Amino acid sequence: MLTHGGDRIGFRETYGREPLDFSVNVNPAGLPPSARQAAAKALSHGERYPDMRYRRLCRALGQHCGVPEGCVTPGNGAADLIWRIAALVRGKPALLTAPTFSEYEAALSAFGCRIRRFQLLRETGFSVTEDFLSRITADLGAVFLCNPNNPTGRTVERALLLRILERCRDCGVLLCVDECFNGFLEEPAAHSLRGQLERYGNLILIGALTKLYAMAGLRLGYALCFDPEMTEKLWAQGQSWPVSAMAEAAGTAALADSAYLERSLALLRLERGRMKRELEAVFRESPYPFELYGGEANYLFFHTEIPDFGSRLAERGILVRDCRTYPGLEEGDYRTAVRLPAENDRLLAAVRELI
Amino acid sequence: MLTHGGDRIGFRETYGREPLDFSVNVNPAGLPPSARQAAAKALSHGERYPDMRYRRLCRALGQHCGVPEGCVTPGNGAADLIWRIAALVRGKPALLTAPTFSEYEAALSAFGCRIRRFQLLRETGFSVTEDFLSRITADLGAVFLCNPNNPTGRTVERALLLRILERCRDCGVLLCVDECFNGFLEEPAAHSLRGQLERYGNLILIGALTKLYAMAGLRLGYALCFDPEMTEKLWAQGQSWPVSAMAEAAGTAALADSAYLERSLALLRLERGRMKRELEAVFRESPYPFELYGGEANYLFFHTEIPDFGSRLAERGILVRDCRTYPGLEEGDYRTAVRLPAENDRLLAAVRELI
Repeated sequence: MLTHGGDRIGFRETYGREPLDFSVNVNPAGLPPSARQAAAKALSHGERYPDMRYRRLCRALGQHCGVPEGCVTPGNGAADLIWRIAALVRGKPALLTAPTFSEYEAALSAFGCRIRRFQLLRETGFSVTEDFLSRITADLGAVFLCNPNNPTGRTVERALLLRILERCRDCGVLLCVDECFNGFLEEPAAHSLRGQLERYGNLILIGALTKLYAMAGLRLGYALCFDPEMTEKLWAQGQSWPVSAMAEAAGTAALADSAYLERSLALLRLERGRMKRELEAVFRESPYPFELYGGEANYLFFHTEIPDFGSRLAERGILVRDCRTYPGLEEGDYRTAVRLPAENDRLLAAVRELI
Repeated sequence: MLTHGGDRIGFRETYGREPLDFSVNVNPAGLPPSARQAAAKALSHGERYPDMRYRRLCRALGQHCGVPEGCVTPGNGAADLIWRIAALVRGKPALLTAPTFSEYEAALSAFGCRIRRFQLLRETGFSVTEDFLSRITADLGAVFLCNPNNPTGRTVERALLLRILERCRDCGVLLCVDECFNGFLEEPAAHSLRGQLERYGNLILIGALTKLYAMAGLRLGYALCFDPEMTEKLWAQGQSWPVSAMAEAAGTAALADSAYLERSLALLRLERGRMKRELEAVFRESPYPFELYGGEANYLFFHTEIPDFGSRLAERGILVRDCRTYPGLEEGDYRTAVRLPAENDRLLAAVRELI
């Protein structure tokens, strides 16, 4: 059992064909052509090292995120930043929700941090509740929140999020909010903590172009933090040249391509609504219990009791994310990306066949 | 002062033009066309995650290095592997030569390892001597050797290297040998410890395609180790998807392209000999002392007392590596890559102008 989606090669080896991959959550519009061209141009100088200081990229990211470029730490995908942050937490306990993205625990454990879990409850739709506040104590090294959460696609209620941020500051605890999927929300700005960075030196935000600009193969993420000392440590706590010259070029180009985002997000919005409606309709026809949760971003999270749902879809060439490997989840929990209309049709047809 | 070469952007900002870059040591033939094509093809599926297990790449690297694929850990350039290894050494002292590649110290220090230095002496041409053996003690976490060394291009004498390996094993100390520049030597096999991996579970070798296949922009390195537990830790001690899908594809293609290596290394051999002869001849015409050391790989290391040699070359559009930032080196120590004939001519002409 892999701890991440997207195992195309494993799928090919098992099922003898290329999957239609709903197990990863990247923008279904694919890499923006502007980014592809920039990466191809960088590739024609593949022998050149990337800029060790990533000056152009940091400038572009700073502008895009509305923060000074000095607050930006670029990395080899969001995962790289998670590891750099974990290195700073080193040895101290960290509070995570269950379920959440598995990379936090992998990184924190590697740096000797004990993991404390706040169990998100099925009954409350896996939402973060006020009880979370009392779990934030001064002995913690860090609190990690994924907002919207992966795999549920559920956001933290804004007022509560701000109280969490404040409580972390009062306790002298680092709050690390992973906003990798923020850009897919209906109202990104209403959920982002970017506007709080300047006031809270204990806040680090993680972002990625991996998802929003479909750069999963290229790898590009970043951290934002207003505390200069912390930012310096994030840079120092990792290898030289973490970002390839291709990702550097592609990222800089993608951030300038607002047309791509507008168009792809408009399509995503339509398809997300349609997928929710049609999946619910299809599953209601089956005798097995079904529940859809969260799903505010570019992926849907649900529970079905149809036996072997995932492997039966796989036999039909479709790969979804079996979520039983997430702490706090169980057999029957699945996550599926929202993709292009024709691809979504194929998923819906395959589910219909199953039922 | 940067701790690595290749600061093209800094050069442009200072001198208003693109440098002819002799400060980095990559294969002057540039990225193999086969690798570029493979990367471009992967780029056309840029939205796909790399294979988390890097199965094809590990198979190709294993075959290339003559070890089982299970002994391979791929990484985001050699630097990524250095950081993963440093994480295993964690907290224990490590023995390094001075001078050597700066990334070892950066990584080891970040993991709380005290650094002990074995000073290589100018009088012995910066060679590792028998005294090194007595510095290997059981309280060490690891010994790092760069062979051939960076920046000197000097190899460790084979018999001594084997004694170092044995002494490390007897002391229960990890020996990490960075063979990134091994492929550029006159006789790579005579200097590599690959053949010893099976017998020595305390040995990790680091390699990179960055240099040999001019993949500096793409980032691709690897570690080899026969101890399965250590290999598992190397994989676990770092982020998921360290290698981009482009580097994965380019690396797999490059390793199959033996014609590229043969041709480029034959040219390099000629040019290395010529550069040594001509540089010595040119410098002998100047009144300032000059000494050339080592230089067994694709770069030459020398000392000149010509004042401001580096910045005066830079004014002529040429970037060489000022080595005064290396512990154990001093003002006047420089490293220059061996590049293509016409480029080398430009360097020689510029030096002649200076003198």
